[in-house]
Amino acid sequence: MCEQYQRGREAVNPVIVLVRPQLGENIGKAARAMLNFGLTQMRLVTPRDGWPNPSAGPAASGADIVLEQAQVFESVADAVADCEHVYATTVRKRGVTKPVVTPVEAAAEIHTAPGRSAILFGPERSGLATEDVALARAILTVPINPEFGSLNLAQAVILVAYEWSKGQGLAQPPRTDLDPPAPQAELEGLIGHLDMLLERSGFYYPPDRVPTTRLTLRSVLTKPGWNAQEIRTLRGVLSALEGKKRPPH
Amino acid sequence: MCEQYQRGREAVNPVIVLVRPQLGENIGKAARAMLNFGLTQMRLVTPRDGWPNPSAGPAASGADIVLEQAQVFESVADAVADCEHVYATTVRKRGVTKPVVTPVEAAAEIHTAPGRSAILFGPERSGLATEDVALARAILTVPINPEFGSLNLAQAVILVAYEWSKGQGLAQPPRTDLDPPAPQAELEGLIGHLDMLLERSGFYYPPDRVPTTRLTLRSVLTKPGWNAQEIRTLRGVLSALEGKKRPPH
Repeated sequence: MCEQYQRGREAVNPVIVLVRPQLGENIGKAARAMLNFGLTQMRLVTPRDGWPNPSAGPAASGADIVLEQAQVFESVADAVADCEHVYATTVRKRGVTKPVVTPVEAAAEIHTAPGRSAILFGPERSGLATEDVALARAILTVPINPEFGSLNLAQAVILVAYEWSKGQGLAQPPRTDLDPPAPQAELEGLIGHLDMLLERSGFYYPPDRVPTTRLTLRSVLTKPGWNAQEIRTLRGVLSALEGKKRPPH
Repeated sequence: MCEQYQRGREAVNPVIVLVRPQLGENIGKAARAMLNFGLTQMRLVTPRDGWPNPSAGPAASGADIVLEQAQVFESVADAVADCEHVYATTVRKRGVTKPVVTPVEAAAEIHTAPGRSAILFGPERSGLATEDVALARAILTVPINPEFGSLNLAQAVILVAYEWSKGQGLAQPPRTDLDPPAPQAELEGLIGHLDMLLERSGFYYPPDRVPTTRLTLRSVLTKPGWNAQEIRTLRGVLSALEGKKRPPH
């Protein structure tokens, strides 16, 4: 309860989520980049070569504490379940209609918005998949030379961590006017509930368009940043609509 | 003469000077970091393994133009002979009494001061020697975790180049303009549709709380600022849920 009280009012240090990272060396380099600017919470989603990875330590150049505390998750949704704000880092233009922020803007939001932020970084070769990006409320893009955009994983991490670190030590009062968005897990609960009702109602047709339709719905429901109370209200709405399907007595 | 005239009045892109760099791979990575943020002028002072270095190209990941145009000098003094402003990058505190600037401050100076700026980066292991620093008018230090300062050469270069690029205005990615919210009538249509379904489902109970509940729901659905397409998607969702209430045939 004390933690909840705190979480509801204070911004906490952001979590760096490496999604399906390939090389242990790059995980180590990312840890080093993080710790250089005071970030310590790393989460790994299904790292290709398992975890722990013997190549990570040497590349971390002494940022062992970040690697030792790193947590491993089975899915992006699990990794960000307790996070109120999720950013997806991409360098390429996406067809997704989400707000796009720079590292400067993201840092300002993270420092002032109450709740925990997570920043997703994709695999070295391919970057984040569309489904990963769909989980995020905003896209984080580093403004880069349009004719030569070639940031590696650790470089993307260090630029984001560097910008975040600038706001540290400044006495910025956190925004308290609005309740923060609900943790991602509660949003997932809402999406799952609606999905189940729509499945039963025959909404998902024709089959070949179902993945796109699901992404669209997720995007529509992720956009608002509903807080926990609002999510509860909507769960009540869905339960009522669901109950109506029982035969009248 | 024409060039001199220009040089005297306009700031030009800064020169990145790698002083006695050791590994060709790190020279390549520095070139990549530079080009990511639009810097192309690299100068090398007595690179340990000579120049060109076959390890540099692969590490540059396509930033070949920076390596091809790199110039080699016998001394730091030669390398900065045509530069009006010289910065020495260090992470450690120095006994030297010179102004110390951050990358942000250096970028502002470089963009506004007429003339050419050079930024010195030292060898990987040892950093700049005292004699190198003595040539500079100011020390450039990246504010870093005091308990873990471990920037490698390419990371130091990328942070400086990144800050410089912010003043360029060229490197901004095209912002995806989000569709504006739908006209209010369309939102009212959605709210009315849901209201009708909830009325039929027995959601509005007890009667004395109905006005408050309606206000809450309106607030939850107004918050997102959904665009016309998103509203249409949600109308489809409601129609599907509504259709389910028909008796199975």
